[in-house]
Amino acid sequence: MSHKRSGILLLVSGPSGSGKSTLCRRLTEEGEAVYSTSCTTRQPREGEQDGVDYFFQTRESFKKLVEEDKFIEYAEVHGNNYGTLISEVVEHLEKGTDVVLDIDVQGASLVRECQSEIIQQALVDVFVMPPSEEELYKRLSGRGTDAQEIIDLRMKNSVEEMQYWNKYTSLIYSGTHEEDYAKFKSLLIAERLKVSRLIQA
Amino acid sequence: MSHKRSGILLLVSGPSGSGKSTLCRRLTEEGEAVYSTSCTTRQPREGEQDGVDYFFQTRESFKKLVEEDKFIEYAEVHGNNYGTLISEVVEHLEKGTDVVLDIDVQGASLVRECQSEIIQQALVDVFVMPPSEEELYKRLSGRGTDAQEIIDLRMKNSVEEMQYWNKYTSLIYSGTHEEDYAKFKSLLIAERLKVSRLIQA
Repeated sequence: MSHKRSGILLLVSGPSGSGKSTLCRRLTEEGEAVYSTSCTTRQPREGEQDGVDYFFQTRESFKKLVEEDKFIEYAEVHGNNYGTLISEVVEHLEKGTDVVLDIDVQGASLVRECQSEIIQQALVDVFVMPPSEEELYKRLSGRGTDAQEIIDLRMKNSVEEMQYWNKYTSLIYSGTHEEDYAKFKSLLIAERLKVSRLIQA
Repeated sequence: MSHKRSGILLLVSGPSGSGKSTLCRRLTEEGEAVYSTSCTTRQPREGEQDGVDYFFQTRESFKKLVEEDKFIEYAEVHGNNYGTLISEVVEHLEKGTDVVLDIDVQGASLVRECQSEIIQQALVDVFVMPPSEEELYKRLSGRGTDAQEIIDLRMKNSVEEMQYWNKYTSLIYSGTHEEDYAKFKSLLIAERLKVSRLIQA
């Protein structure tokens, strides 16, 4: 019996203000998981390298990848396309590396429909929920410099996204960052103990 | 939506020398989970209280409880009977209290056959595995005062029990106590995040 195991795909959603992106970033900074390099149609910024920061695509090459079902999920943000390649994620998973995917509720539902068996077996999903609308409002207006209508729009979007918590297997009610991170990391550690992920050698 | 949830029944097995009992004890001492009070036919020792330390039973009353399917699991140890009542465990679970059950592989298979739906929904099982037979031997002979044949018998029993690891959902390869406990507690914390355990109020 070997200690080797296949990687986990940790899918994390939660409204703006839930703190999910900070949780994901810390997990990667501590070396517990990696982000998969995404494809995008936006222009490279200074210093960005193709294949490192992103796989830069033309509209046409991106569209072709969509048509060939190469993406776990893809979306348009501010007029640019972004997508996560199945092949990139699978490469990490097969090495036993855990991958974290910071994604909205629409993207998450695309991931759940992905036909790749490796992806589905690796998948663990969690929703990060702000503790209350009052606290969420505080967090979304906390930057201090934004116009009221911008804050109101963020708030509306976040409250809408909050309704999807019950599509997820696990739920973190956001408290302090340290509390949230302890729970978040426990999810990953517990998944690593699963006998079903062990690879017999 | 309420934050209330039903309790978890954490079933822990592993050979003598795996350190599982120390893990369970620490979890209860830290207030993360409780032991369920067991029934026994052995005589009360000085200071032991009926209904606190054990529910003391006669052979006849114990046998009746077995026949009436009142136990999650029961076993004979050194000529005395011990059993865990379904009703006791369910009472904790319904209050949202997590229960830890330190149990051998035979007991664990009885728990898996238990007909109570509440028990089955609450069940999370983990096997604690000594890192190697060499390390196990060191641990089992470590007490220093035991005869060789006693150590050999313990060793034989533990190696036999080690074969059952793949009946469990999760597996902890025992390292240091701190490493093991971090994993063990993560299992419980991760289970508490499950949406399926939330009680809508």
